[in-house]
Amino acid sequence: MTKYFDEELDILKQSLLRMGGKAEAMIHMSVQALVQRDIMLAADLPALETEVNHLQLEIDNRAFKLLALRQPMAHDLRFIISAMKISVDLERIGDQSINIIENTKILLQFPLLKPLIDIPRMADIAKDMLRDSLDAFVDSDAAKAREVVTRDDEVDGLKNQVFRELLTYMISDPLTIQVGLQLILVARHLERIADHATNIAEDVVYLVEAKDIRHHAEEEQT
Amino acid sequence: MTKYFDEELDILKQSLLRMGGKAEAMIHMSVQALVQRDIMLAADLPALETEVNHLQLEIDNRAFKLLALRQPMAHDLRFIISAMKISVDLERIGDQSINIIENTKILLQFPLLKPLIDIPRMADIAKDMLRDSLDAFVDSDAAKAREVVTRDDEVDGLKNQVFRELLTYMISDPLTIQVGLQLILVARHLERIADHATNIAEDVVYLVEAKDIRHHAEEEQT
Repeated sequence: MTKYFDEELDILKQSLLRMGGKAEAMIHMSVQALVQRDIMLAADLPALETEVNHLQLEIDNRAFKLLALRQPMAHDLRFIISAMKISVDLERIGDQSINIIENTKILLQFPLLKPLIDIPRMADIAKDMLRDSLDAFVDSDAAKAREVVTRDDEVDGLKNQVFRELLTYMISDPLTIQVGLQLILVARHLERIADHATNIAEDVVYLVEAKDIRHHAEEEQT
Repeated sequence: MTKYFDEELDILKQSLLRMGGKAEAMIHMSVQALVQRDIMLAADLPALETEVNHLQLEIDNRAFKLLALRQPMAHDLRFIISAMKISVDLERIGDQSINIIENTKILLQFPLLKPLIDIPRMADIAKDMLRDSLDAFVDSDAAKAREVVTRDDEVDGLKNQVFRELLTYMISDPLTIQVGLQLILVARHLERIADHATNIAEDVVYLVEAKDIRHHAEEEQT
């Protein structure tokens, strides 16, 4: 039965990684459609969203059954709880990618304001954060997870820069207001994606070290 | 031991309700500060946020210990999992209230665009949705929870209305761009709060009926 249990945990892990890969692909597609001004680059987004949603239900069901039938302890219990939490964040990342493509659809009705630099950079960092947080999960690597958490500030900084710059455009030329607003919303969605990657990284630290680092609980405990 | 277990479940429920009350207070304060243009009405917000964050850690710890030590089954297991999930949504509602007050601080540097009507309405509906979803949780009332889910569309509709109206202002008078943008972001935060209340309601249906209604899983199953 122990061997069977390990196999079940491994299936859970694989489902989560598959879900992570699909969430990452959703970010990539939506931002590519925006940057290259080609909505067809995101043609697979609705299908991916359906798959991500199904994977979340599947992961929840598997986790629930493992909790009910196997009564896991310590690390295994934390692993199952983490898997449920991580799947919530991955699903929200998918939602944010859908939001980005909705903004993009409006954006493409207008001429380009200026070449996009900071937004693709935000997207690259957010995607790296997501990939690294999932790698940290697979390798039970708390150091790598902590490193992801520190990068969240960089994304927040870029978002503030995007906000400021676009506001300047919007104020100086009202014709840029619609485009500026949509780009501001895109930057906000990317910031949220980085937040979700940060949540995942925090879950990994909890999984590996049985230590909760959310809300600076760490500082208070030490 | 069963009696002791019931008491522990009850403590978990009480902590969650306390957290819900504080999250609701945070929405109320932030929107009051915005509507009445008085930042002091949100003076208690940082203290409340700290309390909400602590309650989330407390709920997670309690839930983990119950899972590890009591090995609950069926409804009790679903209750504990739901409590963990609901606490995540409540914490995010607190975060969104903080976002609203950040927008408000910028807004108050500018004259009022027009009396705020739709935004307080969005806030009222979102608060009602939160309160009803928590009531449904306490009473194990799946019908009430389903009713909360249906109200999410109303909030989305109001948000779209706010977006359209503010954009018109911004385009016709560039001096309103900063205010318009901040109000659009507030509307977006309120929409997210309603989404979190919807998540809670979906968790209640799952708790009561052992049925997952996220992603229209219901339609697919029937």
